[in-house]
Amino acid sequence: VFEGLTKEVIADVNQYKLPPRTAEYMKRLMEYNVPKGKLARGLTVIQAYKSIKKADKISDVEFRRAAALGWTVEWLQAQFLVMDDIMDASETRRGQPCWYLLPDVKLNAINDGLLLECQIYVILKKYFGAETELYVQLFQLIQETTHQTALGQFLDLTTSEPHKVDFGRFSLDVYSDIVIYKTAFYSFYLPCALGMRLAGVNDPKLYDLAKTICIEIGHLFQVQDDYLDCYGDPDTIGKIGTDIRDNKCGWLINRALAKCSVEQRKELEKNYAKGVDASAEAKVKKIFKDLDVESDFRAHEEAAYKKITAMIAEVKGMPSDIFTFLLEKIYKRKK
Amino acid sequence: VFEGLTKEVIADVNQYKLPPRTAEYMKRLMEYNVPKGKLARGLTVIQAYKSIKKADKISDVEFRRAAALGWTVEWLQAQFLVMDDIMDASETRRGQPCWYLLPDVKLNAINDGLLLECQIYVILKKYFGAETELYVQLFQLIQETTHQTALGQFLDLTTSEPHKVDFGRFSLDVYSDIVIYKTAFYSFYLPCALGMRLAGVNDPKLYDLAKTICIEIGHLFQVQDDYLDCYGDPDTIGKIGTDIRDNKCGWLINRALAKCSVEQRKELEKNYAKGVDASAEAKVKKIFKDLDVESDFRAHEEAAYKKITAMIAEVKGMPSDIFTFLLEKIYKRKK
Ligand SMILES: [Mg+2]
Ligand SMILES: [Mg+2]
Ligand SMILES: [Mg+2]
Ligand SMILES: [Mg+2]
Ligand SMILES: [Mg+2]
Ligand SMILES: [Mg+2]
Repeated sequence: VFEGLTKEVIADVNQYKLPPRTAEYMKRLMEYNVPKGKLARGLTVIQAYKSIKKADKISDVEFRRAAALGWTVEWLQAQFLVMDDIMDASETRRGQPCWYLLPDVKLNAINDGLLLECQIYVILKKYFGAETELYVQLFQLIQETTHQTALGQFLDLTTSEPHKVDFGRFSLDVYSDIVIYKTAFYSFYLPCALGMRLAGVNDPKLYDLAKTICIEIGHLFQVQDDYLDCYGDPDTIGKIGTDIRDNKCGWLINRALAKCSVEQRKELEKNYAKGVDASAEAKVKKIFKDLDVESDFRAHEEAAYKKITAMIAEVKGMPSDIFTFLLEKIYKRKK
Repeated sequence: VFEGLTKEVIADVNQYKLPPRTAEYMKRLMEYNVPKGKLARGLTVIQAYKSIKKADKISDVEFRRAAALGWTVEWLQAQFLVMDDIMDASETRRGQPCWYLLPDVKLNAINDGLLLECQIYVILKKYFGAETELYVQLFQLIQETTHQTALGQFLDLTTSEPHKVDFGRFSLDVYSDIVIYKTAFYSFYLPCALGMRLAGVNDPKLYDLAKTICIEIGHLFQVQDDYLDCYGDPDTIGKIGTDIRDNKCGWLINRALAKCSVEQRKELEKNYAKGVDASAEAKVKKIFKDLDVESDFRAHEEAAYKKITAMIAEVKGMPSDIFTFLLEKIYKRKK
């Protein structure tokens, strides 16, 4: 399906009769940035659609529509990752150099991010433009989610700079806002809601409930991500955690700040975000250990799991197994 | 109207209950970047709407709708300028430091550009969301224009780097593609087409004709801009031209390359894009003078004027005075 979509995007660009290098570059832009992830978000759209349709098998046409819609979420993610990597001065992404680091790309990557976004609406029009009501619902969902994600990026960018430690800006509430806006909306709510729209769910209350559930799942997902960054097995998670040295406003540091003594706070301030200085990082980890934030994480995961399970039990008017599926997939995950 | 729109955008952001600094920053982002230009594009929307309605006076409600739509074009421009200034490493814009150069902004400006874009669709939904057919038309027009403009940016960015002279990539055709895609669509066609949609024009042929006319007007506008950069009175145009030292793929250099001798081409290659080296710039200008590209410009302006006038005479089915207005406003302009 991805290959078909890139061809349709290229065909759209070719209507403009621009020099051939334009289409070539767009192809490369898409292939480098869109399909290299785990595709969990895109697959969730299909999963949600099937679950609500109560159909293990769907027709080819239905599958292509659901898959195209799923890919738009991957496209949106690609746009955000391309731009985020520039702002974070990151070096690698999904095992390859960040797009903006390629010698013939550099800051043109800003415009490339915008091009990826425009391609979303080319796909959307092509697949759903003839069904006005559905089309409007889908583009409003994507638009609103883009706005929420950009607001989350704003909060994230303005809460911590790479090496300036200012714990005055950190708190578990600030953390939750960042996580919900920057990640949960586009990673969890958007794919579910797109699948629901495609399956014809119309009750606004169901969308509100789906939003509440998906936000909780997305929040738990990020708390786990932060936990694994520090306590996970590097071989299993596939990378060495850098949140402490990168001054991340993560769950562990916020949990530690909420319960530490004045002395511990000073020690954290002195050693957080000290780049590759391993002894500073070790001192932070030592305080995490003294405060036993690892147990706090376990308790948090249990409580969140129970809370979300109870919320899912409240879903009436549509099958709820997409939410159970998402929750079980992340519960107690090791990577 | 602008103040009202910022309030509505802020109200939309406030529904999310994020920290108060969020709304404060969004206000500052909009006020710094959206309203400081000449507003020609926004006013064209109102002008087009009035001209088609054949109404000197329109009701308050009609005015607010047309003005809100006009502002979306200014918002779109703000997004592109914020991002363009980063990619071009520009220093000032509209008499103030570029947004990305502010000490608390820097590369966060990338995300701010995206936020400005999202705000367009907040405004569009608020003002036109209830009229589905119109809403979809407006949405698609803005989307498609954003895509075209980003494609034009791509062509521009990949045709010349700041100091690497490669005339092999230049030509009057390449020039036209860049100008039409990067500038003419959003500056001329978009405002006219939005005004036409709002006034209820539905005939696709009229949109095609409007597009052809607006592209020609936009092209002439940019040729004039390039001419004035070199031959205009700095006091009148309000700035000192820098196209030669900035390696711009402008009309004059492309015209010169099309008619120069092998020796002149070598001399141009040696002296184009030499930064603040005034003697290099003078040598380029000397060749422009020897080749009399100034007369070529006069002839081009006359021919374009005649051609566009003839096209405007072909408009049937709607009043054509918006096009005449745009053409007369730029014909023989000195600034
Ligand atoms: Mg990042
Ligand atoms: Mg980031
Ligand atoms: Mg992480
Ligand atoms: Mg520029
Ligand atoms: Mg530029
Ligand atoms: Mg100029």
